[in-house]
Amino acid sequence: MGDQTEQSETGIEEEVGKVLEQAKELQEAASSSISRSSREEKDLRQRAQSLDASIAKLRSSITSLTFDNDMDSRLAEKLEDELNRAKCILVDGDASSFLPGKAESQFLKMFLGPINVRAVRKDVQLKVKEEYNSYKDRTAYMFLIFPSLLLFLRSWMWDDCMPAFPVQLYQAWLLFLYTGLALRENILRVNGSDIRPWWIYHHYCAMLMALVSLTWEIKGQPDCAQKQSGVKLFLQWAVMQGVAMLLQNRYQRQRLYTRIALGKAKRMDVVWGETAGERGQLWLLCPLLFILQGFEAYVGLLLLQTAFVGVVSEWQVVFCGFLLVLMAVGNFANTVQTLLVKSRFKAMKRTKSKQQLD
Amino acid sequence: MGDQTEQSETGIEEEVGKVLEQAKELQEAASSSISRSSREEKDLRQRAQSLDASIAKLRSSITSLTFDNDMDSRLAEKLEDELNRAKCILVDGDASSFLPGKAESQFLKMFLGPINVRAVRKDVQLKVKEEYNSYKDRTAYMFLIFPSLLLFLRSWMWDDCMPAFPVQLYQAWLLFLYTGLALRENILRVNGSDIRPWWIYHHYCAMLMALVSLTWEIKGQPDCAQKQSGVKLFLQWAVMQGVAMLLQNRYQRQRLYTRIALGKAKRMDVVWGETAGERGQLWLLCPLLFILQGFEAYVGLLLLQTAFVGVVSEWQVVFCGFLLVLMAVGNFANTVQTLLVKSRFKAMKRTKSKQQLD
Repeated sequence: MGDQTEQSETGIEEEVGKVLEQAKELQEAASSSISRSSREEKDLRQRAQSLDASIAKLRSSITSLTFDNDMDSRLAEKLEDELNRAKCILVDGDASSFLPGKAESQFLKMFLGPINVRAVRKDVQLKVKEEYNSYKDRTAYMFLIFPSLLLFLRSWMWDDCMPAFPVQLYQAWLLFLYTGLALRENILRVNGSDIRPWWIYHHYCAMLMALVSLTWEIKGQPDCAQKQSGVKLFLQWAVMQGVAMLLQNRYQRQRLYTRIALGKAKRMDVVWGETAGERGQLWLLCPLLFILQGFEAYVGLLLLQTAFVGVVSEWQVVFCGFLLVLMAVGNFANTVQTLLVKSRFKAMKRTKSKQQLD
Repeated sequence: MGDQTEQSETGIEEEVGKVLEQAKELQEAASSSISRSSREEKDLRQRAQSLDASIAKLRSSITSLTFDNDMDSRLAEKLEDELNRAKCILVDGDASSFLPGKAESQFLKMFLGPINVRAVRKDVQLKVKEEYNSYKDRTAYMFLIFPSLLLFLRSWMWDDCMPAFPVQLYQAWLLFLYTGLALRENILRVNGSDIRPWWIYHHYCAMLMALVSLTWEIKGQPDCAQKQSGVKLFLQWAVMQGVAMLLQNRYQRQRLYTRIALGKAKRMDVVWGETAGERGQLWLLCPLLFILQGFEAYVGLLLLQTAFVGVVSEWQVVFCGFLLVLMAVGNFANTVQTLLVKSRFKAMKRTKSKQQLD
């Protein structure tokens, strides 16, 4: 018995010593691995940045040489193609994670502190993008169903006067939805997506509107149906918005996959609210977007009017009306801009192929 | 002239070729660097995990051997000390980033999607923690000043009847503050902090309460002062809470630095609302915390009472009252638990030093 005890004692003593040794070894291995990989990272970062600068420099000198007729246009085209290939390798490949990303926005810093949300590995970045798309899909259905249900119950059960709670639940849901979207889009931007800044600002405005509408007294004293006419308009607009979101999501996914297949798009591109793409669906989507924007502005102006005529005198009404008009104008300007860029690009391509035919 | 053009043409042609070559090289270097470091990471992860398991196994066999009197207690103590050292090296050093972290919570996934918020480098983790502390400091002042100002203006300018806007501004600020705190604490947890889960749940409750209070009609029709008595109580409690937060922050920082100096704490530890530590300040902090919790429960019960007596019949009042009572009970239970753990630990240390004297 005593022998056995001694044996297990020495056995354990040895094992403990071994474990301590292993811990020290692991610590050293970990520290050298971390420092080596951060050294490598720094080196790759520098190389990627200087290569990016060279490409830009060469591009501008080719442009100026062809402008001065100092270079054969065929040669210029060939060289530009090669530069495009180099850029593609740099931007779409593994090296892209070593290019300087967009700085983290104040919005992210405010909510998350100085944490790094940039993924180094391309597959993780793509997972984030995929998840953002499926999040938009999921929420688009909710976006459609929630206000439809409220409007339906309003005329069917509630006798044109909605109780406050379900409306406020909807407003709270909108607040969290828009906060989540704004956070995710900021993260995508850090990860190299070229989402237009306006669509992020648009979500800030929508957050603010949801917050303000929560403080808005919904059940009016003198005439509930009249007081709720603004809310009703807003809900109708939300239903239309839901339909447009579903169409947009479907369309943008298709377009993104086509573009990836054609090698045109980086997979991090986000095209929320943008309108260019396959002809067939575009003719459906474009007018719908403009009608929506018009209706958004109309609801905004109506809210402003009810406030100034004096039926409802709360500041929330004025504020929401103003925000709606602002968002409608911004959305309109950005959609038009995208369309203009698109048509200019197409015109350029047309002249090019004509030149080649000549 | 023609000669010059040709020269610059060939020069640029060469440079473009070089740039394309460099892009290919960089792509290869980046891809091999990424795959090597992820291979190394995987290996280190396995080693760290198996070492952690061995330490736990050895610890339990030592405990069972000493329990069966099969091991000399002095030897057992020595071995345990060595195991503690190994654990410290594993948990506090560079290897710690390869230990499996806590999984990302549903809350983080909901707001951010599947992005990785875990920092590999220890210094980045510590920066996150430091920033969390300074965020708490900054907000604690706001937490004190905002309700104080409201209460002051209430009796000085507003004649016991606060206008809705400043109160709602305060509630919106609370909502964003608590959302930010909850996000940051979830991130800290992923990064290895051992913050008690309750303090995170507590912030979820506080978020919910801020959200609900936004929908609460503040200006009552029949008797404003009576209707606002609940709000007044809540603001008074918030002032006390602000003072307690400032004291706690100061105290916890000191304690954390002392513990780091003594090598006891990992620097990622968060001790929001916990109460153990240096004697001098603890005697001030502990009763203050209990008074606060009592007052919190009192405000909650009062809200419940006003609702049931029938002065105010909104559901928001009942809900906020219930949440306040829940939070008070949870805070109390967690503070007591922390104190118990502390005193048990002290008693153990006392018997140990007594044994050593014997």
